[in-house]
Amino acid sequence: MTQEDYERRMERAGRAAAYSGLAGLIVTPGPDLGWLCGYRPTASERLTALVVEPGRRPRLLVPVLERPDAERASGAGGLEVSGWTDGSDPYAEIAKWVEPNGRYGVSDSTWALHLLGLQRALPGSGYVALTESLPMLRAVKDAHEVALLAAAGAAADATYEQILGVRFGGRRESEVAADLARLLIEHGHSQVDFTIVGSGPNAANPHHEAGDRVIQDGDMVVLDFGGLKDGYGSDTSRTVHVGEPGAEERKVHDIVREAQQAAFEAVRPGVACQDIDRVARKVIKAAGYGEYFIHRTGHGIGVTTHEPPYLVEGEHLPLVPGMCFSLEPGIYLPGRFGVRIEDIVTCTESGGRRLNQTAREMAVVQ
Amino acid sequence: MTQEDYERRMERAGRAAAYSGLAGLIVTPGPDLGWLCGYRPTASERLTALVVEPGRRPRLLVPVLERPDAERASGAGGLEVSGWTDGSDPYAEIAKWVEPNGRYGVSDSTWALHLLGLQRALPGSGYVALTESLPMLRAVKDAHEVALLAAAGAAADATYEQILGVRFGGRRESEVAADLARLLIEHGHSQVDFTIVGSGPNAANPHHEAGDRVIQDGDMVVLDFGGLKDGYGSDTSRTVHVGEPGAEERKVHDIVREAQQAAFEAVRPGVACQDIDRVARKVIKAAGYGEYFIHRTGHGIGVTTHEPPYLVEGEHLPLVPGMCFSLEPGIYLPGRFGVRIEDIVTCTESGGRRLNQTAREMAVVQ
Repeated sequence: MTQEDYERRMERAGRAAAYSGLAGLIVTPGPDLGWLCGYRPTASERLTALVVEPGRRPRLLVPVLERPDAERASGAGGLEVSGWTDGSDPYAEIAKWVEPNGRYGVSDSTWALHLLGLQRALPGSGYVALTESLPMLRAVKDAHEVALLAAAGAAADATYEQILGVRFGGRRESEVAADLARLLIEHGHSQVDFTIVGSGPNAANPHHEAGDRVIQDGDMVVLDFGGLKDGYGSDTSRTVHVGEPGAEERKVHDIVREAQQAAFEAVRPGVACQDIDRVARKVIKAAGYGEYFIHRTGHGIGVTTHEPPYLVEGEHLPLVPGMCFSLEPGIYLPGRFGVRIEDIVTCTESGGRRLNQTAREMAVVQ
Repeated sequence: MTQEDYERRMERAGRAAAYSGLAGLIVTPGPDLGWLCGYRPTASERLTALVVEPGRRPRLLVPVLERPDAERASGAGGLEVSGWTDGSDPYAEIAKWVEPNGRYGVSDSTWALHLLGLQRALPGSGYVALTESLPMLRAVKDAHEVALLAAAGAAADATYEQILGVRFGGRRESEVAADLARLLIEHGHSQVDFTIVGSGPNAANPHHEAGDRVIQDGDMVVLDFGGLKDGYGSDTSRTVHVGEPGAEERKVHDIVREAQQAAFEAVRPGVACQDIDRVARKVIKAAGYGEYFIHRTGHGIGVTTHEPPYLVEGEHLPLVPGMCFSLEPGIYLPGRFGVRIEDIVTCTESGGRRLNQTAREMAVVQ
């Protein structure tokens, strides 16, 4: 990414803001800031904010003690960088820059401390989260980004292939989770974001953190893991069985696999996000398990592992070529077991393309 | 921490809210949530929110897929836990619980996405960041917490003692930073938050990230490192010299040490936070380096490494026995070198007590 690449992104963001009736964007540390200008500080109680407005040079306000770092960011050459000093009011500084009665898109993870500071300094201004005001800002990936997501997916796939060879029965979930983390790093991840290992009844808890439970022969085990490789995310789930599965376990796994496949086949440009969710949900409902599919079908992925587009009832955004997202239906039978199957998929002109390629049939592990 | 301990904290928080004219607190994932009820999920686009109101049983709203985890938190027995489902409106759910025109304290790091959702669902409501509305909520530590901070400080001190024995000259800053991280973990830290190694001209950049620069003989090197041990923070800085320092380097180091000592001696109950900052600044100004002390004198520490009280101009909050905070004046000469000396200090009835004990004289390293 060159300075010119970042300048183009900021210019495009400014135009998109204007098109959406916004005076501009106010972006604080997090994925949007890194994506727009290559600056990746830690979010803190000291305000750092990038202001992007159509037709104006973007401006970045930083704590003066972090100014040298900000000026070294890859996109800093396209910015005006100012520092504010501890004890002064950074919100009053932003207020001097922006439209006092403007409506601004603000990054989702901006701290309330800072948003309230802006609202106080600019009582006539209005704010909309970027996910809601500009869901398309980072949702459509260019070819280079899709290639990075595919590489992250391939690393996650290699991790899955290798985890099938480790022992499950008799070991704690947390030990298998540590194996997953180690393998992700070995396959080039710089950061591991989650390593869910939900065994037996814990598999019925979709966001179960791997814990002390010793995995038993006869357990279903949901594996859901991912992180960042070269700045782009991976996220895949498979459900494996320790020893031979029983008939009901097979049946539930088949239903989830069929739902995931149906959602995948429904992917094409112009289809609303909520329709992908409906397709997956319909399969599970028809099989009599509708009440046990207790989450949305998927979420976008890019420089974060959760971002627009969200494949959820009520999301009317249409799929566009270049969007990348998870398809991850599941069935969770409380106290008994659960199944989830998840691939990252990108929307192309001709339909979906999977960025995870491992077998979706239920693997039998030791 | 037992369920009763958490219940007491929540009850106290509700009373403090009422005393400050707030209808209650709305707390999302982060240090306040963990401190109040022992639940520590990752912040995300899905709303998790604890509502604490005086005289009412606290309520926690979580994504339904995370409900099993929430119900296992140490303080969950004192809460009413409800789940919301993807595709439904969690803000409307909170709106049913709270005073429609109430003024609520909200955790500093609550995502803008969520605060804007609350503001939309409750147009008559008002919000104030907890740092501003209830700076005292976690600022005064009990004896157990001070002991945990002292243990974290001792681990950081042991790290510093050992880093004095490693080679500096000829190695990259990032290598010394990796040594610091390894030593912090070896001494019981579960998490490393920062390992600043600023050598030569980089020492003049207070928040410099350790980088590729090879440390030279004759460099000043600012070391500033810390993280969490048993849930409580460490944060200490020392400035060392590779080989024998010159006269100006000694002089600047002495001034900073004198400023830090003066700030320490000024610590006693009832003194305003800004007065501690003024005491340190006065020493540096009198020595002619006022314009090169470009940050506040300190910040509170507890379950996070930056929290109230902030020792900064404009902060009138008085020191109270049990407050724990950094004292970290510095002088930064752009393009040349920098010095910072930092200890964690707790305020007692009779004055300050340092939780870092290593020598503050400039150490000479290899």
